[in-house]
Amino acid sequence: MKDAYVITVGNEILKGRTVNTNAAFIGNFLTLSGYRVRRGITVMDEIDEIVWAFSTAMENASLVVSSGGLGPTFDDMTLDGFAKTTGQKLRINDAALSMIKEKYHGIELTEERIKMARIPDRSEPVPNPVGTAPGIYYDNGAVIVIILPGVPPEMNAILESLRDRIRQKDVHYYDESVIIAGIMESEFAPVISMLMKKHPCVYIKSHPRNIEVRNPELEIEVSSYGKSENEAKENADRVIHDVLDHAATMGKNKK
Amino acid sequence: MKDAYVITVGNEILKGRTVNTNAAFIGNFLTLSGYRVRRGITVMDEIDEIVWAFSTAMENASLVVSSGGLGPTFDDMTLDGFAKTTGQKLRINDAALSMIKEKYHGIELTEERIKMARIPDRSEPVPNPVGTAPGIYYDNGAVIVIILPGVPPEMNAILESLRDRIRQKDVHYYDESVIIAGIMESEFAPVISMLMKKHPCVYIKSHPRNIEVRNPELEIEVSSYGKSENEAKENADRVIHDVLDHAATMGKNKK
Repeated sequence: MKDAYVITVGNEILKGRTVNTNAAFIGNFLTLSGYRVRRGITVMDEIDEIVWAFSTAMENASLVVSSGGLGPTFDDMTLDGFAKTTGQKLRINDAALSMIKEKYHGIELTEERIKMARIPDRSEPVPNPVGTAPGIYYDNGAVIVIILPGVPPEMNAILESLRDRIRQKDVHYYDESVIIAGIMESEFAPVISMLMKKHPCVYIKSHPRNIEVRNPELEIEVSSYGKSENEAKENADRVIHDVLDHAATMGKNKK
Repeated sequence: MKDAYVITVGNEILKGRTVNTNAAFIGNFLTLSGYRVRRGITVMDEIDEIVWAFSTAMENASLVVSSGGLGPTFDDMTLDGFAKTTGQKLRINDAALSMIKEKYHGIELTEERIKMARIPDRSEPVPNPVGTAPGIYYDNGAVIVIILPGVPPEMNAILESLRDRIRQKDVHYYDESVIIAGIMESEFAPVISMLMKKHPCVYIKSHPRNIEVRNPELEIEVSSYGKSENEAKENADRVIHDVLDHAATMGKNKK
């Protein structure tokens, strides 16, 4: 399976001013597109930090998606960082300039606006159907890099437009959850270990939803990747069935 | 100023099943405690990934705070990863065992429960006032590492109990925001650059809240670190004043 990294750029995320919903959206999108999201990296609006993020990600992943730092202000420097990482030059791109011109029709094209048309010279601008700064698509044969703005509806729309280009056709992800009440996580842990050994094609994770000792409630999530949606779903269904069986037996033995 | 890194462990965050509110909470807590949060790293529930996260963080930061992977299931392996990174051995810790025993009073201490009392041998267990797994406090003289469970109320409570131990007494953070309507981010960008040069002790960031061209609305955030709360606030106030002045002039010139 191909590995993906998600990069988010912005001091506001690190300071906790903004909750990182972009990383969650991108992570979910990539999982459903057939990738395993291995790492998420958040860095400050600084060139060296952005270079570190892209270098680390491009060394290890097949697909890298970043969001943030594409706007017109002094601290929007994701493209500078990415260009530096990959030895590209930032140049006014004709297609990108037309996209920007169209957005600002009738309004003066200042330096700050033209800045958004300067893109790395071996990269492709991707139209932004919602806002102004175009996204970026880069493919060097070993790794694909997609760079998105940080404003959520712009980020969503550009990523959505690239769905077919990055979809792994033969990898399908599926997950399913059940809630079991009255059993502690520490009590159910050996069942999960046993079921994981019995069904190596799934991953089982327990999410405690309550205070362990007083009133335990567990959400058991079973996820699977398969060659078809059906295969992934059947893998998960089989294990959910086993989970419920074990939980019922444990519940009965308590009474 | 001292740098902090935030590590979050868990496939559910990478897949976007869980929005990373823990990273936001910790980032905010550390900023208000006088640190600059430089990087956020999210990794899978895998030993090598956890080792990578702690090594990278401990090489670069003065304070590292992680959350997730402290529970009783097979994939709770943050302590194994941290112990491996720092050459510590996991041992049953008497203080930790008493904490666990107290939580499960009257309930059998199974292997899974005792697992939560096995902590790295040069680390200190920190009582968990809400749940069962204790937190971890480690200080090797160069870097402090705090390891917290992933369940938000447990994470919050343990971190809160450590507030005084990590507080940087002579570093105070303050931020303030104003909304300016009718001015595009690309239009206001040169003002921000100019004000940043004029006031090197603050950081100014614009957060577009609307679609740039049609109905622009900008949130301008001014933040500052100072030796006292007052100094930080005065720095920010001065610049907010300038921001509003410039916005008013730009608004008038449009009419």
